[in-house]
Amino acid sequence: MPYPDPVIRALLEKITFTRDGLVCAIAQDGETHEILMQAWMNADSIRETLTTGRVCYWSRSRQKLWRKGETSGQHQELREMRLDCDGDCLVLLVKQHGVACHTGRKNCFFHTVSETGLRENAPVIIPPTTLYGD
Amino acid sequence: MPYPDPVIRALLEKITFTRDGLVCAIAQDGETHEILMQAWMNADSIRETLTTGRVCYWSRSRQKLWRKGETSGQHQELREMRLDCDGDCLVLLVKQHGVACHTGRKNCFFHTVSETGLRENAPVIIPPTTLYGD
Repeated sequence: MPYPDPVIRALLEKITFTRDGLVCAIAQDGETHEILMQAWMNADSIRETLTTGRVCYWSRSRQKLWRKGETSGQHQELREMRLDCDGDCLVLLVKQHGVACHTGRKNCFFHTVSETGLRENAPVIIPPTTLYGD
Repeated sequence: MPYPDPVIRALLEKITFTRDGLVCAIAQDGETHEILMQAWMNADSIRETLTTGRVCYWSRSRQKLWRKGETSGQHQELREMRLDCDGDCLVLLVKQHGVACHTGRKNCFFHTVSETGLRENAPVIIPPTTLYGD
């Protein structure tokens, strides 16, 4: 880290981007292996992530680079990036500072399908008002 | 398992499907927490998975239900299904029988981005010719 530019260019050539220029990205805690969140990256956000070591996604709703934690402080340090067999999904092994979910939970997958319906499987660790203000 | 029909219907209402009627799905080994693969599901494949306990995806390339392991024998038993905060991604905790990747590796994320380029991080466990014939 940072990765050399030829390595980044070779990776970008291996990725099968969507029509919108995006690739699915899964953030996983590098130590506990907990799946933290799923988001999307474009070439620029991949380049920034591999250059800075801080995870940057592409926000589809805001149509701009999403430097994870820029507002909330809950950023992700990249430990390792992996690409899947058909080149259309990345796994980011990260060190998560604080919580990954905007609801204040450690990860975004806090709804479990149970035999009686959806139930929450994880507590709020940091209230959203602390993360984002009132 | 099987999940009652009202539970499945309530889940489907919570999911934000793409324009194509799909939702991102991440299969994770329920014991080791290894991320095995990423694929897509539609309402029918979710319903089948929750009814049978065997994971069924939607194949975008073949445009049909993809009963994982139907050809190769490498099927996935569902242990738990989770939905993320904004309803557009599922995590499937599974028991993987054999290998998840069509290359014969345990998981699909066997390319690691290293400082000298992509390197393979996992061996072939079952040769593809064994999985799919010559």
